[in-house]
Amino acid sequence: MPVFLNSSDPDFEAEFSALLGAKREDSPEVDDIVARIIADVRARGDAAVIELTERFDRLKLTPETLAFSAAEVEAQCGKVSPRDRDAMELAAERIRAYHVRQRPENALWTDPEGATLGWRWSPVSAAGLYVPGGLASYPSSVLMNAIPAQVAGVERLAICVPTPDGQVNPLVILAARLAGVDAIYRIGGAQAIAAMAYGTPTIAPVDKITGPGNAFVAAAKRRVFGKVGIDMIAGPSEILVIADKDNDPDWLALDLLSQAEHDQVAQSVLITDDAAFGQAVAQAVEARLKTLARRDIAGASWRDYGAVITVRDMDEAAALSNRIAPEHLELCVADPEALAEKTRHAGAIFLGQWTPEAIGDYVGGPNHVLPTARSARFSSGLSVLDFMKRTTLAKMTPSALHAIGPAAETLAISESLEAHGLSVRCRLDRLNEESK
Amino acid sequence: MPVFLNSSDPDFEAEFSALLGAKREDSPEVDDIVARIIADVRARGDAAVIELTERFDRLKLTPETLAFSAAEVEAQCGKVSPRDRDAMELAAERIRAYHVRQRPENALWTDPEGATLGWRWSPVSAAGLYVPGGLASYPSSVLMNAIPAQVAGVERLAICVPTPDGQVNPLVILAARLAGVDAIYRIGGAQAIAAMAYGTPTIAPVDKITGPGNAFVAAAKRRVFGKVGIDMIAGPSEILVIADKDNDPDWLALDLLSQAEHDQVAQSVLITDDAAFGQAVAQAVEARLKTLARRDIAGASWRDYGAVITVRDMDEAAALSNRIAPEHLELCVADPEALAEKTRHAGAIFLGQWTPEAIGDYVGGPNHVLPTARSARFSSGLSVLDFMKRTTLAKMTPSALHAIGPAAETLAISESLEAHGLSVRCRLDRLNEESK
Repeated sequence: MPVFLNSSDPDFEAEFSALLGAKREDSPEVDDIVARIIADVRARGDAAVIELTERFDRLKLTPETLAFSAAEVEAQCGKVSPRDRDAMELAAERIRAYHVRQRPENALWTDPEGATLGWRWSPVSAAGLYVPGGLASYPSSVLMNAIPAQVAGVERLAICVPTPDGQVNPLVILAARLAGVDAIYRIGGAQAIAAMAYGTPTIAPVDKITGPGNAFVAAAKRRVFGKVGIDMIAGPSEILVIADKDNDPDWLALDLLSQAEHDQVAQSVLITDDAAFGQAVAQAVEARLKTLARRDIAGASWRDYGAVITVRDMDEAAALSNRIAPEHLELCVADPEALAEKTRHAGAIFLGQWTPEAIGDYVGGPNHVLPTARSARFSSGLSVLDFMKRTTLAKMTPSALHAIGPAAETLAISESLEAHGLSVRCRLDRLNEESK
Repeated sequence: MPVFLNSSDPDFEAEFSALLGAKREDSPEVDDIVARIIADVRARGDAAVIELTERFDRLKLTPETLAFSAAEVEAQCGKVSPRDRDAMELAAERIRAYHVRQRPENALWTDPEGATLGWRWSPVSAAGLYVPGGLASYPSSVLMNAIPAQVAGVERLAICVPTPDGQVNPLVILAARLAGVDAIYRIGGAQAIAAMAYGTPTIAPVDKITGPGNAFVAAAKRRVFGKVGIDMIAGPSEILVIADKDNDPDWLALDLLSQAEHDQVAQSVLITDDAAFGQAVAQAVEARLKTLARRDIAGASWRDYGAVITVRDMDEAAALSNRIAPEHLELCVADPEALAEKTRHAGAIFLGQWTPEAIGDYVGGPNHVLPTARSARFSSGLSVLDFMKRTTLAKMTPSALHAIGPAAETLAISESLEAHGLSVRCRLDRLNEESK
């Protein structure tokens, strides 16, 4: 049973805080192991990667077979059914169309003192995308990571995807090809992150690593952060549905379950202003759980982390939503736009009852790599900007330097940075000489 | 003596790689200590912060005196000379004028299928800015961190600045007031980062922490990353000057020294296409080092990490610059714009000989918090975007869902995510029923 809360109950605040603070993350003590793996890959390169892959994935590789060959890529893509291929091509096209609009603008202007100021965006040269293997090997995630990189103009795109016992998901390979990936390595775990960050004789290092992964991958990304850029440390998925009673309980039950089926530590929460409707949705969830293929996972998630919260009105729903800062927020209410205006912290908002969250996972267009665990308070979903960086530009003229240089000199002196001050002063002196 | 390299020498590549790979970062083993400090602050709140401040800063505080009072802020600001105040106001005004242009645009459009798509930016609710104490207590950094936050629309801005033995820099307090900071806490180190990330009874938690600091602060920021957002792990400062012979060697010597004087592990590099000019600059550096106030620090930096590189032409200079990915890049050449076009990885570019880097530290307008240690390959200087996040928006109509829903269902099934597929299917079925 999920928890049922009511904002009118006297102990609501304590219960809601407990819900917010519930620790869902599996955090095994992997950091020491990861540190050793990274050091090993840095020291021994391909040999370490190959040994670790044999140990963890039961797969014997050589430097020559670390990457899929062009023929292997071709063969895997050929296994995909036309129906799946068409669906993936539609998804790729829509994701690309959305992300193209995110390309940032350069700027350059001249200020009243005559100084030219601005900035210029440029793509990172090389990016590496991690794709989990096994249960969580989602081809859609390949599109969601690789297409923004491609749109940004990244020159070299690599993927690491483990293939335990040699098992390959052909759709992952097809997604990589659709998204313009240059190299696909069949390696995973911390060793893959280390190889992409530091490079090996066979695997060229990249500048930015993105993509979800297990606790080892997350710990490795945290450790290589600084040497390369990373996207975020992904946590278990979550959805908040805010709904009034004018909804089909079964639809919302499926929306809640579409998060719960990801992971037994995923979280699905319903907020409604109608307690009876909340009960109806909970009953619909139980009914669907009887037959759902992933009922063990989804049922555990719903039982342990699910919640149905009854509120007085939708303003209260918005306030609670802002405290939850959900990864996914579905607004199944009469005026979803008005409610969206009031919800400030959310990774992605799905407006109205015709927009199930699953649309956003595949074909909506926006990215499905989104901030989890309340991090929508301070971070955004993956975008083209994650694969670009900004260089600021400044050019002084003699008269601009004459106008603002003395203030710089004053501040440099106040900070006891004499050379800073002198580097301005020597130029100002020249100007004064010349104007004599 | 700095190293002198020449790109025509046969062993240049090895020497340049060694220069790139030189480890400048002091990295004492502070991580365990920091982990204990964070745990202590989480467990004991104000009491832990107060004890640690007494131990490290020799300053006895109470919960009531953790923050500067309004009267104390007023008193400190009153100590600043009119000249310093005017300079700081000019700096604040110019920094604000630059950053206002960085405010990002929201977007909302309807696609050919009738789906409404877009995104919306919003500020983080609360930000905490770390300001080092002692030697590296730079008021200009307060402006550079706080003004972008203020321009972003952050509602609550806090600063932590340690005041060892109670020593306060009045300019830091004035800068905080000019930049709209709400609370100034006289605490530092890992305990300050922990307090801002997790909150204490007296110090409200924030969503994002920015600002430079020592190894303890850096390790603490890395550890709280995820609980809150952080800007970057700042490393020692660096400058690359690319210059032809039509420059005053003394000007460039001072520009190189203005980085070297920051820190003995700072790095200053000159690339020139004229070996004799390179020697002249090196001589000018030595001459200035005889009298410079910070000659011990600047001299050690120049001796241990300085470099003068002679290249065949400016294209080669640009190529080397891209491998260095410098924090600061000064282009003192006849056509700096053309050379800037070729330099892709740099935190900030200063164009032409009238733009000493020190202008950018104070009054240029662009931010002086910039990516160090080659991280300009994948990251940008601090900006308004660091204090905002993006929520994606999607709204399907029944007909849009009819058009793209089946592809989502297909992909969900291919990923064995049944509830995802059903959440789309139940809606498509309703549409089919209605159209009968």
